[in-house]
Order: sequence, then structure tokens, then C-alpha cells
Amino acid sequence: MDLKPTKPLSGFIELLPAQQRFVDACATRMLNVLRTCGFSYLDLPAIERAEVLTDKDNWDEIETQMYLFQKGDTKMGLRYDGTVGLSRYVAGHLNNLTFPFRASQFSKRYRGERKQRGRFREFYQMDMDIMDVNSLSTNYDAEIISVIQRTLNSVKDFIGDNYVLVGSRPFWDALFNYLGLTDDQKKEIFILIDKREKIDEQEFSAWLSDILKNEKFENEIKSVFTNGYEYFNGKSTELDFAIKELTDFMEKLSVLGVKNAKIDLSITRGLAYYTGLVFEFKLSEYPELGTAAGGGRYADLAGKFSKTKIIGVGAAIGFSRIFVTLAESGKIDLSKFESSVDVAVLIMGNDNLPYAMSVLNALRDAGVPSVAYLDTDKKFKNQIEYADKIMAKFSMIIGEDEVKNKVVAVKDMSTGNQQTLPLADAIKMVK
Amino acid sequence: MDLKPTKPLSGFIELLPAQQRFVDACATRMLNVLRTCGFSYLDLPAIERAEVLTDKDNWDEIETQMYLFQKGDTKMGLRYDGTVGLSRYVAGHLNNLTFPFRASQFSKRYRGERKQRGRFREFYQMDMDIMDVNSLSTNYDAEIISVIQRTLNSVKDFIGDNYVLVGSRPFWDALFNYLGLTDDQKKEIFILIDKREKIDEQEFSAWLSDILKNEKFENEIKSVFTNGYEYFNGKSTELDFAIKELTDFMEKLSVLGVKNAKIDLSITRGLAYYTGLVFEFKLSEYPELGTAAGGGRYADLAGKFSKTKIIGVGAAIGFSRIFVTLAESGKIDLSKFESSVDVAVLIMGNDNLPYAMSVLNALRDAGVPSVAYLDTDKKFKNQIEYADKIMAKFSMIIGEDEVKNKVVAVKDMSTGNQQTLPLADAIKMVK
Repeated sequence: MDLKPTKPLSGFIELLPAQQRFVDACATRMLNVLRTCGFSYLDLPAIERAEVLTDKDNWDEIETQMYLFQKGDTKMGLRYDGTVGLSRYVAGHLNNLTFPFRASQFSKRYRGERKQRGRFREFYQMDMDIMDVNSLSTNYDAEIISVIQRTLNSVKDFIGDNYVLVGSRPFWDALFNYLGLTDDQKKEIFILIDKREKIDEQEFSAWLSDILKNEKFENEIKSVFTNGYEYFNGKSTELDFAIKELTDFMEKLSVLGVKNAKIDLSITRGLAYYTGLVFEFKLSEYPELGTAAGGGRYADLAGKFSKTKIIGVGAAIGFSRIFVTLAESGKIDLSKFESSVDVAVLIMGNDNLPYAMSVLNALRDAGVPSVAYLDTDKKFKNQIEYADKIMAKFSMIIGEDEVKNKVVAVKDMSTGNQQTLPLADAIKMVK
Repeated sequence: MDLKPTKPLSGFIELLPAQQRFVDACATRMLNVLRTCGFSYLDLPAIERAEVLTDKDNWDEIETQMYLFQKGDTKMGLRYDGTVGLSRYVAGHLNNLTFPFRASQFSKRYRGERKQRGRFREFYQMDMDIMDVNSLSTNYDAEIISVIQRTLNSVKDFIGDNYVLVGSRPFWDALFNYLGLTDDQKKEIFILIDKREKIDEQEFSAWLSDILKNEKFENEIKSVFTNGYEYFNGKSTELDFAIKELTDFMEKLSVLGVKNAKIDLSITRGLAYYTGLVFEFKLSEYPELGTAAGGGRYADLAGKFSKTKIIGVGAAIGFSRIFVTLAESGKIDLSKFESSVDVAVLIMGNDNLPYAMSVLNALRDAGVPSVAYLDTDKKFKNQIEYADKIMAKFSMIIGEDEVKNKVVAVKDMSTGNQQTLPLADAIKMVK
């Protein structure tokens, strides 16, 4: 019989134990921050009805990006983000939740798109959202940014510093209205701005000219990137309002203790459902990772599920994109994640098993990560090699003498020093 | 536009925040036990190639149980257990792992079967496996049972006591050989034994007679359940060997400190890949939950992926089956999981926001789960109602006076007592 393939499907993540421990340690710290900030963790289904995932009817078109399938008469698929399930959940539990409701998620998402460098088909995102019915102060937008920064800072020793760029969809809306652009033109310019980082200035100009066919308008748009938003002060009430919202917001961020925040109107978050301020976090030391986290405000989160108007501000941290990429990059020192245990109990012959087991149980009861080498007929050489390979900090060697005297021989695996101690003292020593 | 459905698909789990906190608290404790016992956590892909998931070619038949789909030319599907991915992983990383290798998993599994009470289509299992190349002492089988009991005991305050029933596939093989049964008969009797709990004695007898058509043989099989295995001592070398393995094993369990273990030869784990001892854990207080955990030994774990012979002993805890069922049952007191925070910061007017934010940040820095009500223009009545609803233990109320005097008014939400304190003292008080 032919052997089956041992590699996972392309675009799917599979880590070695040490890499996994690094990734888990980061997730644990970050989730702990979200808990401290009062976010309720939600674990929603990975499979949703197709009609929940998409409004489109053209399955062939959607299927290139989504994992869709059918069971009986029901079309369904794997979630591609955290927002679609959250909207459904909140709309379905309006009476069971207290608003403003802070929700966090940390779950796998699925995108079937062609695999690119650093893009996975199955990946974790860590979401945080604050929602309320009918109104929600922009103070919460500032809080979300503060919380993301707290979350990223909890793993600063691995990912270094971060900064946040804040954009404003209302500013662009106001500018487009001021210029009197058509809806099609607005949409196309949003796509163009989203692509701006990836194309050169000339291409940007040509594309813009193609959309607007009006040199004055083109210059106005471009001046946002050269002269900044200040230039548009006083041009229209709507522009003034958007600019004031944005500058007030930056002050709020500083009040909340957010560091390294600046306005960058080229941040628009593409064609997503955002309707207010938008933002992106980047990692200063890892520009190649692109956007570490991004989010913004949406005026009507659950409109497809409920007549109740839910306003939300939310963001997602590209968890796998950051931490799996770093774990695999060789840029992180994984040495302190190599070992799964502190103590390896080595047993010289099966007769010593009962006492050795009482030692192992005492270690585990005391919370000391520990294993025993239970092939008790293997030679000492094999056993100590095992303890070495799993990078145990200590070995506890159990032979006849140790059993007789109710002690353990503790060997420090880094220095090679060995001493014989009563069990309680040995546990104190390795703790 | 019609509103979309807010309910998840049938058989998919969706919990309210307090239920989720209960389930998460249990998972955290249990995973901590597995870490202490030196198991390396693996997070494997949820999607595998169809050829990895199944040997069968008849998709129509498989599809009733599995979620299968196709992307381009690749047939794939969602995993239905943890073993299939683990086998592939271990076979693919033979040179990167240290054996004996202890692996744990805690991940979602998918089964498309018809929904039954307490059966989910998407559910968590918590797996632990110990594997080695070519040989593996049955001491490890005993360790797995000890570790499962430790894991279940870590949440004893919720699920109560557990007991473990140990069966032996080699005993049945030896008995079938002793009786000279055909391979078809062996297979059919395994299916029948697996169903034994669900049918009455008469039906069992009739079915057995149908398979064997030999009254003497039928009585021999039935006597296992009435007279026990002792009756078969001395009948054949193979039977003697199997009985000695089983009785020695029970002694080992006692040496390892396992409580409430007994032999039950009706435990066979159905038609799965097990080849040695098998076992099932039950919860004394919740018989209706059925098998809480089950597992056993397999002589050739990764034979489909590698020519290297990997022997394993492993088990899975039916995590969602236990904890989601309990969370939804009303039998668990969820009151201490109702609240997401210890402190709600209430802000009397937007002018007090900067100072209030410094209070919130100080609380979060100190690790105190806390939120602020950031709609600062809302009346005190609304704000204190919110603090009440989210069941915050304390409110910290920030008004003009507090800002001026750099203090906070701390209100104990259960007693209603309020006192004004410097921030540092207030944090000490709520910690």
C-alpha cells in the first residue's frame, strides 16, 4: 500500500512543540489582558449558514475565497472573519447581554484564496468589539485602541514596539461630497487608496486621473497625502466636522495613555463595512509583517439580523500572521520554549516503579512540570539521554538505595551536579 | 429585506458569556494539568486531505458522517477526531520529536451525523497520547489513565467523582481463538458487545445465538459477564497471558494512585483501531453523560503514513459533551461566572474622563478586571444600573471632587457601602 502524505495541506499551519509553546505563551498573555479589560470571550461556531456568510448568490465567484459546502439541503461554509458570527450572535441574544457589551474572540478563520507569503488559509485572529444599542461614544473607539496596544505590549519582549495610524472614513466622505463626486467614483477611489502602499506614485496618479478626469480634483485628493488634512479646514461644514472628530480623537487617545498614535488618512480599511474612524497597528521592528491589527467603527453591525440598531467598534489582531510567522522566522529565540518539563524521573528497574510513581505524583501535585521514563528496563544511559533530549532542568534518579532510604538523587542537568535529598527538599529545590 | 436567521446551525454550540466562562475555567484547569504532566500541546489543522481522513472511496457513504468538500482538484474535509491528524503529524516529524512523545490536543472536531441528545456536530475533545517507536511499556497505559483522572479531578468541584472501567481486546481475541471462531464472527461479536449496554439480555442472547449458532460457545461468551474472566484461567496460554496482563495492569494503576478502577470486559471501544487494553471513564454523579473519556492502545498508530512502527496509547475526554451539557443543564451553579469584572469605573461628565482613564489604566495595570462606562453624558442612575447588571463587585465613581482631590469613591456593590480613598488604597481594597 502506498503511504499517505504526511504534510498538511498548503496554507495550513503545523508547528513543532517549541514553536507551539511560544505561540501559546503569547496567546495566553494576550487573552489575559482582554479578560482584565472586561471583554467576554465568545467561542462561536466555525461553520455558518451560507446565507449568513454572504449576500451573494453566485457561488462560483464566492467559492474562490470561501470554503463552502452542502449537507442535505443546507448550504454552509467556514467563517472567514469574526464579525459575521458576532453580528448574528449579538442580534440573537439582545435580551441576554448587557450593553455596552465587550466581546473578545480568538478562533480559527478560513480563507481559500491563493496562498501568498505570510498568508494562511487557516489562521487565528484575536477580535475585540464593543457594541451598544443606538449610540456609542467615540470614547469606546479610543478604548479599543488602548486595549489593542495593551495586548500587543504584553508580548513586547517578542514583538517590540508598536504604533497606530488613525484614518477617518467620514473625512473622505466629506471630501468626496465637497468635490461632488459620484458614488462610483467614491467607491473606486477607496479601492485605489487601499492599494496606494503597493503601487508607485505615477501609477497612483494615472489611476486617479482615470477615475476623476479632472486635474483640480486629482490635486485636491493628492494634497491629502502631501499637505495633510489641515488644508481642508474651513472648506465645508462636513469637512470641518470630520477634521474636528479626528483631532479630538487623537487627544482622547493621549488621555487614555495610547503611545505612538498618529493621523494617516491613507488608512481606510478598504471596502469593509466601516463607517467612522479606522485604524491600523504596525510593529516598528517588523514592517514586513504589514498590519498587525486593524479595525474601526461600524454604524449598523447587525442590520442583516435584527431591526435593532447595534453600533460597534471593533478590531482584529492578525494573531497567526504575527506569531506563527515569527515562530517560523528564526528571529525569535525559542530556546526557553524547547523544554516541556522541569524534572524527568528516571527509574532503575521495574521494582522501583511504585516509589518512583509516588515521587512523580508528588511533583505533579506540587505543580512541577514533570515526566517519568517508564520503560524501566532501559539502561541508565538511555534514560539520561532522554532527560537530556527533552531538556529537563533536573533528573530525579530512583534506584534501590533511594527506595530503601526514601530519598531521591537529584541531578542538575546543566551543571551535572548530583545530590541526594528527602523528597520534600528535592521538590523545594526544583520549584 | 428579510432578516437572516440568528440561531446557529442545528448541533452547533453557542453559549452565553457566563456559560462560556465556566467552560473556559474548566478547560484552563485541565490543560494546566496536562502541561504539568509534560504533554506537548499540538494545534493541528482542522482540515485534512480526504485521503488522510478516510480509506473509503465511496464518498456518498462517508459523507453522511463527515464534512467533505473540494477546492480545485483537492478533496478535503474537517477532522472527526484527534488521532488521524496526530498520526500524520508524528509520522511527518519522526526526526524532530523525542520519544516517548507525550502529546495533548484540545480542538474542535466535526461530525455530520444526525443530531442526538447530547451529541454535537462541532465539539471539543481533549486528547492525550504517549507514543514511542517499536515498543512502549504498558506503564504508559497506566500513566494515561492516571493523567486523565488527574485532569478530571482538577474540576471535581463541578463534575464530582469519576471511575474507570478497564477492558482488554487481547482477552477477547484469546477467547475467540480458544473457541475457534471465524474472523466474521469475531467482528460481529465485537459489534454486539459494544451494543450490549443499550439492549436487553434477551435481545443480546438472540443476537449472539444468531452469530454463533452453538449453545456451548454462547454460554462461554455470556459467562464472561456473569462469572468474570477468572473462569477462563488455564483454558489456553493466550487466555492466561491476556488475563495476567489485565490483572498486573490493575495493580499498576493502584501503584500510580489511580482510584476507582475496575475490570469490565464489556468495554471494547467498538470497532476502533485499538489492539490492547482499553478503558472508559464515567462520572459517578452524571451517569446520563455516558462515557466521559475513553481510550486504549494501538499497535501501529501511523502505519498509513510511515514504515516506522509507532506504538501509542491515547485517550480523549469528551470535553463539550461534559462541560457544554453541564453548562446548559442548570445543574451547575454559574453565579460566580456571571460577572466579567471586579470594578466598574463610572464617570460623572466628560471633563472627568482624563482622571477616570488614569484610574482605569491603574486598575488594569494592577491586573484587576475592570471596565469604564464611557458614555460619560449618561446619568448616574444609568451608570450605576450598568455596574449592577454586569455584577461588578465594586464601582469607582469619578466626579469633580474626586478629580480635584485625586481620590476615588469606592462603592461595594453588594453592601452599598461607599468610601473615599486614595487610588492606591482603593486598588489594594478591591484586589
